[in-house]
Amino acid sequence: MTTIEALDPITNPPSTDNAKHLAHRYQEVRQTSLRLAEPLTPEDMVAQSMADASPVKWHLAHTTWFFEAMVLREARPDYDWYCADFHYLFNSYYNTLGKQFTRSQRGLVSRPGVAETLAYREHVDQVMSSFLLGAEEAELARWAPIVEVGLHHEQQHQELLLTDVKHLFFHNPLFPVYRQWPADATSVTSPPLGWQHFPKEIYSIGHQGEGFAYDNEGPRHETLLHAFEIADRLVTCGEYLEYMEAGGYERPDHWLSEGWATVQELGWDSPLYWFRRDDEWWHYTLAGARPVEAEEPVMHLSLFEADAYARWAGARLPTEMEWEAAAAGEPIIGNFVENEVFHARAATAEEGKGMFGNVWEWTSSSYAPYPGYRPPEGALGEYNGKFMCNQYVLRGGSFATSRSHIRATYRNFFPASARWQFTGLRLAKDST
Amino acid sequence: MTTIEALDPITNPPSTDNAKHLAHRYQEVRQTSLRLAEPLTPEDMVAQSMADASPVKWHLAHTTWFFEAMVLREARPDYDWYCADFHYLFNSYYNTLGKQFTRSQRGLVSRPGVAETLAYREHVDQVMSSFLLGAEEAELARWAPIVEVGLHHEQQHQELLLTDVKHLFFHNPLFPVYRQWPADATSVTSPPLGWQHFPKEIYSIGHQGEGFAYDNEGPRHETLLHAFEIADRLVTCGEYLEYMEAGGYERPDHWLSEGWATVQELGWDSPLYWFRRDDEWWHYTLAGARPVEAEEPVMHLSLFEADAYARWAGARLPTEMEWEAAAAGEPIIGNFVENEVFHARAATAEEGKGMFGNVWEWTSSSYAPYPGYRPPEGALGEYNGKFMCNQYVLRGGSFATSRSHIRATYRNFFPASARWQFTGLRLAKDST
Amino acid sequence: MTTIEALDPITNPPSTDNAKHLAHRYQEVRQTSLRLAEPLTPEDMVAQSMADASPVKWHLAHTTWFFEAMVLREARPDYDWYCADFHYLFNSYYNTLGKQFTRSQRGLVSRPGVAETLAYREHVDQVMSSFLLGAEEAELARWAPIVEVGLHHEQQHQELLLTDVKHLFFHNPLFPVYRQWPADATSVTSPPLGWQHFPKEIYSIGHQGEGFAYDNEGPRHETLLHAFEIADRLVTCGEYLEYMEAGGYERPDHWLSEGWATVQELGWDSPLYWFRRDDEWWHYTLAGARPVEAEEPVMHLSLFEADAYARWAGARLPTEMEWEAAAAGEPIIGNFVENEVFHARAATAEEGKGMFGNVWEWTSSSYAPYPGYRPPEGALGEYNGKFMCNQYVLRGGSFATSRSHIRATYRNFFPASARWQFTGLRLAKDST
Amino acid sequence: MTTIEALDPITNPPSTDNAKHLAHRYQEVRQTSLRLAEPLTPEDMVAQSMADASPVKWHLAHTTWFFEAMVLREARPDYDWYCADFHYLFNSYYNTLGKQFTRSQRGLVSRPGVAETLAYREHVDQVMSSFLLGAEEAELARWAPIVEVGLHHEQQHQELLLTDVKHLFFHNPLFPVYRQWPADATSVTSPPLGWQHFPKEIYSIGHQGEGFAYDNEGPRHETLLHAFEIADRLVTCGEYLEYMEAGGYERPDHWLSEGWATVQELGWDSPLYWFRRDDEWWHYTLAGARPVEAEEPVMHLSLFEADAYARWAGARLPTEMEWEAAAAGEPIIGNFVENEVFHARAATAEEGKGMFGNVWEWTSSSYAPYPGYRPPEGALGEYNGKFMCNQYVLRGGSFATSRSHIRATYRNFFPASARWQFTGLRLAKDST
Repeated sequence: MTTIEALDPITNPPSTDNAKHLAHRYQEVRQTSLRLAEPLTPEDMVAQSMADASPVKWHLAHTTWFFEAMVLREARPDYDWYCADFHYLFNSYYNTLGKQFTRSQRGLVSRPGVAETLAYREHVDQVMSSFLLGAEEAELARWAPIVEVGLHHEQQHQELLLTDVKHLFFHNPLFPVYRQWPADATSVTSPPLGWQHFPKEIYSIGHQGEGFAYDNEGPRHETLLHAFEIADRLVTCGEYLEYMEAGGYERPDHWLSEGWATVQELGWDSPLYWFRRDDEWWHYTLAGARPVEAEEPVMHLSLFEADAYARWAGARLPTEMEWEAAAAGEPIIGNFVENEVFHARAATAEEGKGMFGNVWEWTSSSYAPYPGYRPPEGALGEYNGKFMCNQYVLRGGSFATSRSHIRATYRNFFPASARWQFTGLRLAKDST
Repeated sequence: MTTIEALDPITNPPSTDNAKHLAHRYQEVRQTSLRLAEPLTPEDMVAQSMADASPVKWHLAHTTWFFEAMVLREARPDYDWYCADFHYLFNSYYNTLGKQFTRSQRGLVSRPGVAETLAYREHVDQVMSSFLLGAEEAELARWAPIVEVGLHHEQQHQELLLTDVKHLFFHNPLFPVYRQWPADATSVTSPPLGWQHFPKEIYSIGHQGEGFAYDNEGPRHETLLHAFEIADRLVTCGEYLEYMEAGGYERPDHWLSEGWATVQELGWDSPLYWFRRDDEWWHYTLAGARPVEAEEPVMHLSLFEADAYARWAGARLPTEMEWEAAAAGEPIIGNFVENEVFHARAATAEEGKGMFGNVWEWTSSSYAPYPGYRPPEGALGEYNGKFMCNQYVLRGGSFATSRSHIRATYRNFFPASARWQFTGLRLAKDST
Repeated sequence: MTTIEALDPITNPPSTDNAKHLAHRYQEVRQTSLRLAEPLTPEDMVAQSMADASPVKWHLAHTTWFFEAMVLREARPDYDWYCADFHYLFNSYYNTLGKQFTRSQRGLVSRPGVAETLAYREHVDQVMSSFLLGAEEAELARWAPIVEVGLHHEQQHQELLLTDVKHLFFHNPLFPVYRQWPADATSVTSPPLGWQHFPKEIYSIGHQGEGFAYDNEGPRHETLLHAFEIADRLVTCGEYLEYMEAGGYERPDHWLSEGWATVQELGWDSPLYWFRRDDEWWHYTLAGARPVEAEEPVMHLSLFEADAYARWAGARLPTEMEWEAAAAGEPIIGNFVENEVFHARAATAEEGKGMFGNVWEWTSSSYAPYPGYRPPEGALGEYNGKFMCNQYVLRGGSFATSRSHIRATYRNFFPASARWQFTGLRLAKDST
Repeated sequence: MTTIEALDPITNPPSTDNAKHLAHRYQEVRQTSLRLAEPLTPEDMVAQSMADASPVKWHLAHTTWFFEAMVLREARPDYDWYCADFHYLFNSYYNTLGKQFTRSQRGLVSRPGVAETLAYREHVDQVMSSFLLGAEEAELARWAPIVEVGLHHEQQHQELLLTDVKHLFFHNPLFPVYRQWPADATSVTSPPLGWQHFPKEIYSIGHQGEGFAYDNEGPRHETLLHAFEIADRLVTCGEYLEYMEAGGYERPDHWLSEGWATVQELGWDSPLYWFRRDDEWWHYTLAGARPVEAEEPVMHLSLFEADAYARWAGARLPTEMEWEAAAAGEPIIGNFVENEVFHARAATAEEGKGMFGNVWEWTSSSYAPYPGYRPPEGALGEYNGKFMCNQYVLRGGSFATSRSHIRATYRNFFPASARWQFTGLRLAKDST
């Protein structure tokens, strides 16, 4: 490993405002990861509940490795790995950078333990700070965008940390509490559903200009949308319960063929985490087991369930283009991870249609490149592009997303059968 | 079962030309199925090589059941099933019509045997003929579209019969010959690859007007395409071999993530049916084992392989919209099942870009509903719509497709990993 | 292939009685296989219902290959394979003789078809007859034992042909009939259960002396048995139904741990082939679906079920040594395949304890070598010895066994979970 | 939970010597578990490497639950579970006592954590001590045998703790060290192999009389053994390497059929934990990765490998009866867990044939009940009897077994494919 002192001395130029600002944001994001892990024991942080999820300890190490591999090793030729084996252990899927430890066995790696993982983080944070604050303007200009990717990458893993802890704890019959339900929680009522009209028109879609965005959000381009309507709020648990009571999980009528096959094979009869207790529907939440509240947005749905519900309701899912057209210009306010509520709730009056936060919204769009899209050169080219197959796009962020991480053009994606993310839906329909 | 005589007497009006024409086409299509099965023994017709494929005997019975279930039982209330159990055995996936026999066990149903299956076909054919020729104008007008669906449905199964026989025979180390290689086969040379330019424009996509089309080809609608180029011929075996020799199957560089995982898991190192013999690449064809010919269009590729090849070649797959724009107005000529060549070959000079016949062409488009699409009411609503998830669109037909079955708007679809269909590719790229 | 004429001329000595007798028995056994296949169509003979079962066509070919591989190729150096590929296709598991076609894919080999398979049989039969009748005394003495193994081998496959056809037909919802229930079938009543006592003593176990036996039946050796009692008849369907009604399949109480896990995993709630119809228990038989008869011996039980029943009944299964001690000296009479009943029935009065025929009787003995056992040299050494692990011994033969194939020392063996054989049980207990 | 104080007051009779002795041994055994867990971090103790293995934390909790369930709840009607959910979480397989948490998910139960698990142990230990020291003579006489079972049960889990930690650590590419290789380790040389003769005779087998034994070791009974020879030492790594170099894993010749299938399916090419480094064979040990030493007993073999090696060496495995006859009267000295070597070594001169300690020795005997065996009533009846199927017996203990836990009649058992236990072999052969 390289100690900070061992690195080539830098003629420490006075740090620029840009440098200070980036270093500050770096510390902030990195500390948020630790704060999210605070309620967890070392034992909690080792276990892996399925191949799709990762141990918390792995999230903390992998996001650190990201800065080593993408920034320090590239920008500072004399930088040595903190531990050479970590390069293999904590590389997620970057073939450009070498072979990776088997994903489904991440829960078997009890060492490095939590303490050593935190030491690893601290070491890299110090080198990174030193690097950022000591970088010359040109160097900073070159590496700041990669550091920015690393921070957004870490914010993605902060959300995954929460989805994965929830999935893990659900398997424990003791139903551990991640965070107590806030004593002052006030429930918000969902208003009657209304529709917003959008005319047939050429819309501009995708990111452009100031601010961070992933490569997959561009290039911004024109697309012709046919007239459509979009709902002014999310579908609620109460509405979804009506669908269940109407035999939603018992009849193939509204399901995609693969969706119905999945229902049969996996025995689904409700959203993930729901269960019956005393003749009522309850669900496991990050605050433990609680009765399902009718007014809350429904979540932990697969695309299959979201799609079947929408058909049953005489509507459909929006495409991602429609969603983005409807979100363009909306203020980014809502129930985010900064609120520390750790659960979805109905949008407040001021949050309008509530297109940001609370739950990720399934769209009917298969995840595909925008016209003219080219992945970046090098390892970062594997970040997004190679997953553009058999995945569907989700939009808007959730209560576990950072407000500073989301925007109208943001494209999240998961397989149609995924349910452990905080995933719900908003209805759309053709305009007649 | 209902004998023809037992049906309510029809006041046999003199058959109209429409009726005669439809009855004639009915006979023609139905006999083509039998002709395609002619080289096969009863033993060949029972076996099922995998869950995705079906026994030939099943194809012959299922297409017959289709007319019973969709036409006779609906149009003639006094029509009785030929055999009530067949309704369960030969229903493929229509939940509206009841439960279905387990797909993966179709190869275990040795009875009804081939002879009884043929008798079943003959019975239904006689009742259908009698029905069509005896129908009044209004009745005919109502049922002709459904009969037409049934005939196109049968043509689809004619192609599947060939793909499934090829897959079955490949598992037999004796490599049985379905049809001898034509003695007079002349090989056609593939010209150097050229590109055709299409400007950024609003194109009209989808079927409209005269002639048959499936529900999923409509509604015809406007779409904005960005400028693109499309290759003027298919990718050849020779070109694909270059990719293989450049390490195509050994390095993750150009693969979609799920594609590379599939390569590793299934040990793919070449297109399906290819194998090494005496240090050369051979492949199993419907005429037995033969050396791979460099000039032939490559086929039996998954979307994963087609996509990886395209990236390696500095290009990409076309979207289905781009393909359709490029095919609009092209004459429907090419190497079809009517040629009885049963193998792909380069397009002739007069066939131009060769967009029809030979091999199905993978597009990068996920199979999704067109704006405003609504599946028909009833069982036929399950024909196409419920498969619009995790499938990719192929265009243009193959050497196993009937010329009378294909058109520029035709949308075939298969999962990204499917290789046993006659699937190849044509390159496209952004126009700069 | 070698025609008979092409083989080196033999100075045809006048055939001895031994030769004639063996050639006669050869014809008889070989024709029995064909007679058992008579009710089947070519379609029936191709299909394979699971990896453990084989197509009838394969049984007919494999038993023929056995004579080619074990006799003709060894005894007649100029004998050529009928078809070289058959050596690969029809070798079951003899590594000494080369690689084998994948067992689970036998049902995909539609060619050679039934007609060609029969031609193959006829060819080998002619060469074998010519060889046997033309052999000199010394040659005959050397090869007769191997021919004898081949004939007993074929008799084993005759029983498997029936077990495998039953398994196949059961998957067809039409429940095909292999052979009509005999019009004159008289049902035999099972008497009350009695016990026969055997004292603590040194018994001699295993085959010795005249007559054919497999290698695994020797060497005959002394073993010390502790005093025990054995039931004087088989367990009946009526008795087993009592167990089922007492919650046999619903409670873990009497099951081996692996047995209970199997019940849970596979959802067993009755013997194989049993099903509910109109609130009664029926089962599929070779004569189609029929109500379960209380007086019949219960069959299609795994060792797990047989063992659990025995515990529930306050008894246990006999060891194979105890069974053999109890069967020694009993006349070999009973319900065999020669009866052509094709179903189990209670033993008649004259059949005494009924230890032969009807159903194979599970013992608690793991299949293991007798003291001093050594497998023969060469390919035949693989016949029995290599299976001596994780299999349990069954004794006594079934209604599908030939009377000329069974004896008191005969050791059949199957995994504890196997149910598609004709397997039942007889109780035993310690003598107090 | 019940605190000690809350239990009905006991008129504390002066503790007898028996009570003191038992309470002392209880403390000793319980503390040994903690000592074995000492080198482990909380993270190490949570993870589960496969369904057959358990987390260390689970072992510590389950052995504690055993005393609660089998002793305290039965003997003290007012005793309350420490935590009611633990009864479900830490019951391994006792159906008599209720449902059990899914075995393969034990690694997902991060809570109770290590600290709480230790508190649980301490609580139960205090109640148990108080109970034992306060018990009247008659009460003690009744419960002492169950306590004794509980202590031997815990000793079994102490060995499993080590086998499971080794299996877990092996999956970590850092190859963690459980305990450093002893600095003063002296290597012992294996002498040339000799044979000890045993005549044909009636031997008495099984436990009788003083001292603890499991139910499956009785009743002691007579058995007739045929003359045999048994090797005077274990097979070494050097000898096994010869077998490997002779193509042991590449040719089916000496393998049981199921063994060879397993080799093919799992790609075995050496004992478990062996790997190639710099053209040498190394293996992972509890002291980290080390070169394989030729003189050491080979271990981590399945029965399949032990059996194949023995055949190749012209010998066979002993039966468990032969092994016990050969071990009867041998002093119980050897390399046990008390030595804290944590690895196998050759027996010293004074250890003679070395039948105890070092490695468990596979026998060819399927695990089956002795004549007259009856499992005890109640939950303890599930301890041994229900596993008597598809398991093979191992004898003699290993370096991870306590000297106070092993004896000549001790029957350990595992499936033929198990390799993660400390399993090796000793040769035997028929006496000619």
